[in-house]
Amino acid sequence: MRIDIITIFPEMIKPMFNESIMKRAVLQNLIEINVIDLRDYSVLKHNKVDDTPYGGGAGMVLQFPPFYLALKNLRNEQTHVMLTSPRGKTFNQQRAIELQQKQHIIILCGHYEGIDERVHDMVDEEVSIGDYVLTGGELAAMVITDALARLQDGVIKKDSYEQDSFHMGLLEHPHYTKPFSYEGKEVPEVLTSGNHKEIDRWRRYQSLKQTFLKRPDLLNGFPLDKEDIKMLEEIKKESNIKE
Amino acid sequence: MRIDIITIFPEMIKPMFNESIMKRAVLQNLIEINVIDLRDYSVLKHNKVDDTPYGGGAGMVLQFPPFYLALKNLRNEQTHVMLTSPRGKTFNQQRAIELQQKQHIIILCGHYEGIDERVHDMVDEEVSIGDYVLTGGELAAMVITDALARLQDGVIKKDSYEQDSFHMGLLEHPHYTKPFSYEGKEVPEVLTSGNHKEIDRWRRYQSLKQTFLKRPDLLNGFPLDKEDIKMLEEIKKESNIKE
Repeated sequence: MRIDIITIFPEMIKPMFNESIMKRAVLQNLIEINVIDLRDYSVLKHNKVDDTPYGGGAGMVLQFPPFYLALKNLRNEQTHVMLTSPRGKTFNQQRAIELQQKQHIIILCGHYEGIDERVHDMVDEEVSIGDYVLTGGELAAMVITDALARLQDGVIKKDSYEQDSFHMGLLEHPHYTKPFSYEGKEVPEVLTSGNHKEIDRWRRYQSLKQTFLKRPDLLNGFPLDKEDIKMLEEIKKESNIKE
Repeated sequence: MRIDIITIFPEMIKPMFNESIMKRAVLQNLIEINVIDLRDYSVLKHNKVDDTPYGGGAGMVLQFPPFYLALKNLRNEQTHVMLTSPRGKTFNQQRAIELQQKQHIIILCGHYEGIDERVHDMVDEEVSIGDYVLTGGELAAMVITDALARLQDGVIKKDSYEQDSFHMGLLEHPHYTKPFSYEGKEVPEVLTSGNHKEIDRWRRYQSLKQTFLKRPDLLNGFPLDKEDIKMLEEIKKESNIKE
């Protein structure tokens, strides 16, 4: 997969790919990520790419021509063009899994004060990462890129991401690591028992419990087996909640 | 407001504050933001802060002691401690507005393979930015910081953020800027009319229309006036949707 991010703040985005998993993914060519400065496609003096809004009002609006020219240069038949926008459909893990199939994605970063409406008409998808207002679309583009990159073959171990919260539809079980005891807080005994059947059972129970307590909406439509249903009954009893 | 972000990837976060609005906010002391390396609080050799999970499984887990020591050092009575976690309540603009009142916020960045459960017990709030899986909590911390920073007095013009999507409860109207005509696409005539009453009416109509078409859920409970209701009827007719 190749992802091109078009932005007026390339220096804000680039460091993301110098760290951790993303760095490894890029170095090993598991994904190609390009950060492109919108100003390279400016049609004004001094690489300016914004201007005052028609009809008046506060703030500057990003112009149509730079985006038009950037897409003309970068887009091909396989390209899926996304624009970060509060109007967009809210991004989620299901959408990340679908987008994983795309060969080439271009993400246009919106801007806090607005972007010429004619840009919206050129894109395949408007996307939002949540119901909050951000300074610009850069963080949204980084979130989408991160979520897609880690699903690419080889970036992280498959047995690792299949256990992720949301991926398998439940919240993850709690994790513990050394030291066993610290400031009066200990690790649950079962995890040091060496009994893998018991550990797996405990983890499933805790995963169901976290989901039940904190995100019960995720349980709607989730395929529970007989053992899960029994566990959920225990959890409800434990939480003193009547069915 | 002061925000401390505790992370294993400080170099990923810092560049965010070298750009645009965030840079200005920090330089003008409208907000104080500190990025703290969790490794400064390591209790192991080579500043190591993670270890293998008790009970087995893929990946490394961030340890409890470094977080404990960091909070012991940084937290005071006014501090609100947040942990980025898929288990958390989903962050939104309403929550950003509430958090704006806090004097001091610490954000602990979770990690894709997990964080010792005992850290969860030390925080005031677990927070998620959406239903997708990210490599780490760094992007989530950046999103929350950005959303809070721009609400601080003086960071952006109040009349600008009060028009924001989500802030006033509707999606924003479309924006246009020069050139008037480009590649066959023109700016709507009304915006160049100079008639501010007509422009305001057009913008309200477009704002309602975008919301109705793309995020009808936002209209639930929104205080519509008589004029809004008339506009929505027009919009429904225009969209060929029966009531």
